Amino acid sequence: MKVIGEVQVLRESVRQERNAAMRQGREISVGLVPTMGFLHEGHASLLREARAKNDLVVLSIFVNPIQFGPNEDFERYPRNEQSDLALAEREGVDIVFIPSVVEMYPKPAKTRIVVSELTSSLCGASRPGHFDGVTTVVSKLFHLVAPDYAYFGMKDAQQIAVIQQMVEDLNFDVTIEACPIVREEDGLALSSRNVYLSSEDRKQALILSDSLQQVQHDLQGDQKVTATELVERVTGLIRSKPLANIDYVQVLEFPTLNEIGRDVDLRHVEHDVIVAVAVKFGTTRLIDNVVISSKGVPVHV
Amino acid sequence: MKVIGEVQVLRESVRQERNAAMRQGREISVGLVPTMGFLHEGHASLLREARAKNDLVVLSIFVNPIQFGPNEDFERYPRNEQSDLALAEREGVDIVFIPSVVEMYPKPAKTRIVVSELTSSLCGASRPGHFDGVTTVVSKLFHLVAPDYAYFGMKDAQQIAVIQQMVEDLNFDVTIEACPIVREEDGLALSSRNVYLSSEDRKQALILSDSLQQVQHDLQGDQKVTATELVERVTGLIRSKPLANIDYVQVLEFPTLNEIGRDVDLRHVEHDVIVAVAVKFGTTRLIDNVVISSKGVPVHV
Repeated sequence: MKVIGEVQVLRESVRQERNAAMRQGREISVGLVPTMGFLHEGHASLLREARAKNDLVVLSIFVNPIQFGPNEDFERYPRNEQSDLALAEREGVDIVFIPSVVEMYPKPAKTRIVVSELTSSLCGASRPGHFDGVTTVVSKLFHLVAPDYAYFGMKDAQQIAVIQQMVEDLNFDVTIEACPIVREEDGLALSSRNVYLSSEDRKQALILSDSLQQVQHDLQGDQKVTATELVERVTGLIRSKPLANIDYVQVLEFPTLNEIGRDVDLRHVEHDVIVAVAVKFGTTRLIDNVVISSKGVPVHV
Repeated sequence: MKVIGEVQVLRESVRQERNAAMRQGREISVGLVPTMGFLHEGHASLLREARAKNDLVVLSIFVNPIQFGPNEDFERYPRNEQSDLALAEREGVDIVFIPSVVEMYPKPAKTRIVVSELTSSLCGASRPGHFDGVTTVVSKLFHLVAPDYAYFGMKDAQQIAVIQQMVEDLNFDVTIEACPIVREEDGLALSSRNVYLSSEDRKQALILSDSLQQVQHDLQGDQKVTATELVERVTGLIRSKPLANIDYVQVLEFPTLNEIGRDVDLRHVEHDVIVAVAVKFGTTRLIDNVVISSKGVPVHV
């Protein structure tokens, strides 16, 4: 496993692998797993997916400052390079790219990639500029690695929708692979930020996955269900937990993130539907979601 | 010479050329010349430069709607596919990419690449959103062709500065080559839009290149010259032509496009300096510029 900190070395390393194979008449496939590190089983599942389908697997670890707002947790975002490298090694990663901030942004960046509409709801509404930072850094990584496949977790469902839109609009030569959310046994979605939960936060945070599971049942029942009812139901459930501070509960079409009419019966819409929540426990903000297909069953995209 | 209209065919054609060479142990170089067609000797000079330095030369011809404002000349921008293809053939182009608008924008595009600061002066100030359209379409072409070198004319000096900034900020794997302005014998900078000048417009339009040439002399003289004085001098010269309607006359550092202090003697600045003008004759808007090095001599970038 190579561990690389410089953009030029990364670019050259991937190119050399490609060219060496091509000289032997083989075209190799390169899989990229972009992360902010502090890796957990969710990331590991992306790496395994990448490993199974590609000749070369590149893991990037970079806590990207430009996707954090001025009052967000860039400084205290958890980091642990040593255990990240151990996990990468276990999962058979070929190249770990772990650059410094100055390596990624040697001069003040003047260029942003902006995806409109898809970024105006959910986390885009709560975190202005967040997705510009995401698409900008992801495009940089795509240009450095030139991957055939890039792997993202469905916990950040909006991120996947936004990146997919960017890839199509800008003709990036990469296929985006969306991988299912990985959960603890009790249902809590894995997140690097979970380490900041107190044990009482942790207990009450289960309401996110619990409430999402309950609405899945509603959508498989005999009664009409509208988006408004569903939002009210989830909101009520989460509010029953005193430590939970709701940022948003939204029900939208997926992956367009278009709004759904007030009276539409969600059991019979033509598009997939996402139920997405963001909830703060103290200063720790958790997100979770479920995407339900037009047939009322959860989608493991 | 291949003439291609579809993005997937373009992508595959370039890839096949690269891979075929690589199988023989050769890495080829690909040069891209992005244009809006109605090709003239200025474009031909770019193609010759590309032809001299690359194994594969790709010419793109696309009048890009998203870089035109609502009251600009998208509809009436001159087009002549047949003579463009003849010129491409003469210059030894390997692939001409000439897509339809719907091929480039199959769905309403939600993604824009925005370069700040550099786009707030000159044409960026007169044409809001213009450079977002340019960087967005250029990034699409870069993703489709994956060129090693891309060639642009210095008549659009701000465009080159903006694209160079994008390439650095987003780690595009391409080298931008800036080629000198090509002029008629009497000095008029070549432009596809020149066909719309009446013979009287055409005569008076010579004041652009004439005035730029005069300020070059000033900068080689014994007298201190400030940006303000230079702007006044060029403005006065252009105003002497009754059909000329000035959009802007600006003197800035190049390629940063930073402003220059009022009292600075331009003969002794550390950066290169651009003197840039945009002038309308009737509804036809012409631009021209000269970049002068810190040593007072014109730069043929």
